[in-house]
Amino acid sequence: MAQHQPRDPAFEQRVRDGFAAQALMRTLGATLASVTPGEVRIELPRRDDLTQQNGFLHAGVVTAVVDSACGFAALSLMAPGADVLSVEFKVNLLAPAAGERFVATGRVVRSGRTLTICAGDLVALRDGAEVHVATMLATMIAR
Amino acid sequence: MAQHQPRDPAFEQRVRDGFAAQALMRTLGATLASVTPGEVRIELPRRDDLTQQNGFLHAGVVTAVVDSACGFAALSLMAPGADVLSVEFKVNLLAPAAGERFVATGRVVRSGRTLTICAGDLVALRDGAEVHVATMLATMIAR
Amino acid sequence: MAQHQPRDPAFEQRVRDGFAAQALMRTLGATLASVTPGEVRIELPRRDDLTQQNGFLHAGVVTAVVDSACGFAALSLMAPGADVLSVEFKVNLLAPAAGERFVATGRVVRSGRTLTICAGDLVALRDGAEVHVATMLATMIAR
Amino acid sequence: MAQHQPRDPAFEQRVRDGFAAQALMRTLGATLASVTPGEVRIELPRRDDLTQQNGFLHAGVVTAVVDSACGFAALSLMAPGADVLSVEFKVNLLAPAAGERFVATGRVVRSGRTLTICAGDLVALRDGAEVHVATMLATMIAR
Repeated sequence: MAQHQPRDPAFEQRVRDGFAAQALMRTLGATLASVTPGEVRIELPRRDDLTQQNGFLHAGVVTAVVDSACGFAALSLMAPGADVLSVEFKVNLLAPAAGERFVATGRVVRSGRTLTICAGDLVALRDGAEVHVATMLATMIAR
Repeated sequence: MAQHQPRDPAFEQRVRDGFAAQALMRTLGATLASVTPGEVRIELPRRDDLTQQNGFLHAGVVTAVVDSACGFAALSLMAPGADVLSVEFKVNLLAPAAGERFVATGRVVRSGRTLTICAGDLVALRDGAEVHVATMLATMIAR
Repeated sequence: MAQHQPRDPAFEQRVRDGFAAQALMRTLGATLASVTPGEVRIELPRRDDLTQQNGFLHAGVVTAVVDSACGFAALSLMAPGADVLSVEFKVNLLAPAAGERFVATGRVVRSGRTLTICAGDLVALRDGAEVHVATMLATMIAR
Repeated sequence: MAQHQPRDPAFEQRVRDGFAAQALMRTLGATLASVTPGEVRIELPRRDDLTQQNGFLHAGVVTAVVDSACGFAALSLMAPGADVLSVEFKVNLLAPAAGERFVATGRVVRSGRTLTICAGDLVALRDGAEVHVATMLATMIAR
């Protein structure tokens, strides 16, 4: 795993400001758990109103928090003033999203001038154990 | 485009029941717009609390409604008693999700015994025009 | 489906030159079947030395011709002087790649200044019938 | 990373037989570098006849060796008698595929009864250094 050098010394504040500006994160009850250069973690407690027909977290909610973790991981390495948008992502759902709490991690795989490639994961905390729920491969763009 | 034959004559009711059982759809304010064999449409009015940092619909919300449209399109062709789960999906974001209202369409591309492959799209209704916002390619599994 | 306007009147010659410069296409025995603005078709006769363990075309060969069809479809709409590279693609394999001949089609879904999103398909010609073998969703970049 | 237990004690021979049965691997000049439970590596020397217009390995060849590495990694954990097919994969191309030699690695992320999810990578050996060229996320099916 490469060590990443932030282009912006104020990277953490930018990520925190960006997260605070995503109304959906508040709507879902998600919080920013950690910000380091090239890696961001988001936590989400389970709520009944975020589920699909079996009571598991809906795949759209899984995607929302992992996509945001990946996007902010990308932003943490971008030059001052840049904004980040998702170009595309692919998600594999590995296990039912059941648990009391979920942690999404986004990590930069390759940071380019225009495009940043990220890998993301969602882990469920279920009865004291960690279950790998989903994995994402995403492309982000700076603008 | 192939004509699809439902294996279950009560396919529409099953889809309507499945949609009603997804708490997230209510949370987002999404409604079922149409159900035909192999194709399902879901509508979503824009709301401020579903946005990312630029005021566009968050990619997770885009994914939620297109994934549900694809999943229920798959379910509409499955045998009685089967439930549907998303195995994986890939989403390309084509334009900012800006507009007053959004329509997600899911269509079955290939219906197998175990796996169903679907294509999905999100269109924004913006100042009287339609804008193609996102496209999805997804794999669903019957269980 | 949008009508596409080529930015380069010599788009067809550029695509033909680009195809001729891809050594792999010759190695596989692929030929350029048609070039129109935003859509390119490539043909590939079946050969034993391109197969996987069941005698079907290997998924890598399926990907090679659909990726090239998508890349050249993107190039057909790019400004003079631009070259095209694949950023990423996703392929769903819908049916075994069995047949005497295969036709890959690449189509531009959205053409931007930097990024072009394409959809691709592979059809097998098998005993006089067409079988949909694979579908691709791809992101191309101009440089 | 989970430790994987093979369901078939003869897993290595099955993978070697499967690899030998893929005519395309011979055509490309690829060889099997290592086989352990849940992880397979394939090597490919660079050849001019496998390139795209810039002299880099064509994305279809990149995909071919990483897809085979992922498929055989999945097969290494499957029950005796099972065969493996690719359902779908997504590839991000991180850097030009330039180098003297390439190593594809496929690893099982989650091994289920029917579906196996794999992650794959391609590394180029270039002037004594390793360059991460591509990353794949794939779904395999046992039949």
